Amino acid sequence: MDKKVCMSLDAMGGDFGPSVVVPAAVSALSEYTQLHLILVGQPEVLKQELSRQRAPFPERISIHPATEVVGMDESPSKALRNKKDSSMRIALDLVKRGQCDVMVSAGNTGALMATARFVLKMLPGVDRPAIISALPTMRGHTYVLDLGANSDCTAEQLYQFAVMGSVMVHAVDHIPRPRVGLLNIGVEEIKGVESVKHAARLLQADDAINYCGFVEGNDIYSGKVDLVVCDGFVGNVALKTSEGLAHMLSEFIRQEYGRNPFTKLAGLISLPVLKAIKRRMDPRLYNGASLLGLQGIVIKSHGGADELAFANAIRLGVNAAQMSVPDRIAHLVGSALQGQAHGGEQ
Amino acid sequence: MDKKVCMSLDAMGGDFGPSVVVPAAVSALSEYTQLHLILVGQPEVLKQELSRQRAPFPERISIHPATEVVGMDESPSKALRNKKDSSMRIALDLVKRGQCDVMVSAGNTGALMATARFVLKMLPGVDRPAIISALPTMRGHTYVLDLGANSDCTAEQLYQFAVMGSVMVHAVDHIPRPRVGLLNIGVEEIKGVESVKHAARLLQADDAINYCGFVEGNDIYSGKVDLVVCDGFVGNVALKTSEGLAHMLSEFIRQEYGRNPFTKLAGLISLPVLKAIKRRMDPRLYNGASLLGLQGIVIKSHGGADELAFANAIRLGVNAAQMSVPDRIAHLVGSALQGQAHGGEQ
Repeated sequence: MDKKVCMSLDAMGGDFGPSVVVPAAVSALSEYTQLHLILVGQPEVLKQELSRQRAPFPERISIHPATEVVGMDESPSKALRNKKDSSMRIALDLVKRGQCDVMVSAGNTGALMATARFVLKMLPGVDRPAIISALPTMRGHTYVLDLGANSDCTAEQLYQFAVMGSVMVHAVDHIPRPRVGLLNIGVEEIKGVESVKHAARLLQADDAINYCGFVEGNDIYSGKVDLVVCDGFVGNVALKTSEGLAHMLSEFIRQEYGRNPFTKLAGLISLPVLKAIKRRMDPRLYNGASLLGLQGIVIKSHGGADELAFANAIRLGVNAAQMSVPDRIAHLVGSALQGQAHGGEQ
Repeated sequence: MDKKVCMSLDAMGGDFGPSVVVPAAVSALSEYTQLHLILVGQPEVLKQELSRQRAPFPERISIHPATEVVGMDESPSKALRNKKDSSMRIALDLVKRGQCDVMVSAGNTGALMATARFVLKMLPGVDRPAIISALPTMRGHTYVLDLGANSDCTAEQLYQFAVMGSVMVHAVDHIPRPRVGLLNIGVEEIKGVESVKHAARLLQADDAINYCGFVEGNDIYSGKVDLVVCDGFVGNVALKTSEGLAHMLSEFIRQEYGRNPFTKLAGLISLPVLKAIKRRMDPRLYNGASLLGLQGIVIKSHGGADELAFANAIRLGVNAAQMSVPDRIAHLVGSALQGQAHGGEQ
């Protein structure tokens, strides 16, 4: 890591607040020597937590006060209107004012989305923000966007998601031309809804995107592409369906190994194997979703994240900041818009 | 089983044709004493396969000739136009002419959908057919529709899916008032696309449906409801995403147990447990999707179904026929239409 990165953390957000954010912050400081962190929240609570952690890099971590906290179930519009001194809002303000390059929060997704959009504004040429995250695959991982920010999308918006996602995957995974698939219900060109078919034509026409055609739901896990593009309704259903199935399966495994003394013994012997399987799809290793399309970098951690998971969200933020993701998106969206304008002139 | 059921089987359909369909047919005859089967396809091939199976109930199984076979990758429109003597088409004709109560095919889904719709026609008041199937859950199974027949749906169509699905679940699982959930990306009323929000209002207003509100992707596997309603794009993505995840997981299990002599031994000791887990979500036990909304019962088996799986599709067909699912749907949709008309008059 070469470039200095300054990051604001919504230290009060998530189910566990400072008790997770502060230890994760301290461990990230050891990992990244050029990382500077600003913990935003109630100073007394944060000071106490910091001294408990015996923070080893006091020159690279500071506290910025914020008196309020956005509740996990609070309505986004109310949070935006009424909580102007919340840890979430103040952490975003620090990015807006250029004091920080990136903000990470485990707070209420809707409120974060609405507040980030209000505070940071959209990049020129981008209609709507999109949520992107990685999921494990047979061969590594695949990014999926949008995961729920936009229920209903036009072809142009899906196209923009592909552009933004390509930049992100390039920045974070250092893949020069990420393979992009458009999520559909068949790989034939006649299949699917009109917006998806039209988005395919837009992507095909853009040489800047490594568009590989339609993919189906199973390809999220096959590793066929690096990035799967879909609207937020479909992406959110795919994500939550996966969570539901994974939960059911781990429940089945628990039940079947717990059935009788013999199966319990088999489970004991299998423990290293079961742990290895679990590790390969540990959601904590995939924690951290980026809100793309904003004039600033915002990372959303899962609300229930533990220290390891939250540290991953910080790591994602460091990578995105080092590669100046918003600038790259602005540049690529700008040239795409120019290309369309030129195309129109011909 | 009391009522006589006559079923036509597309004996040439699916990846394995008669070598799967005929043995599955023979085993179904032993199970259901009132079941009569007509194998549709090339008589020589079928006779040969029947004599190999030494079919024990010759009075309840017969062969109906059809010279052509619809290819698994053939375009639906071409199959419909050019293959008028295909086993699929003739098997559907037998239902149309009233000689059979139900038709089962493991053939090309698109061709089956198009041909069934052309031959049997829609029930009055139903706009579009929908595909319904069961998926395993923590507590049993949940039905999901539509699984891919309709990419884009209006609120009215989603409402009709809920009506048709309720009838099917009632008929097959004997649940008097199946709990119906509408798939969305949040349980709050403000979430989601307009068609889904409007469908929720239609379902709330209909006392004949046991509508339980919005559900999310994970609820497909939680067993919270008996029936999950969504458009075919979303349903298909959810289904295929699940297939992809399940495939990846079983691959991880195989790889991790195969890693070294110790893990192989652990796998050997765990074999009964692993088999028990596999059994609880064996897709063969859930094989058989119904095409609802037609003037006749059509069951689609997975193309790669083996004997056990195809026998399950036959079982589903028997249940649907015994409970006269299309008549019940017509009745319920009819009263719903009347209710709407009366509602409009007020």
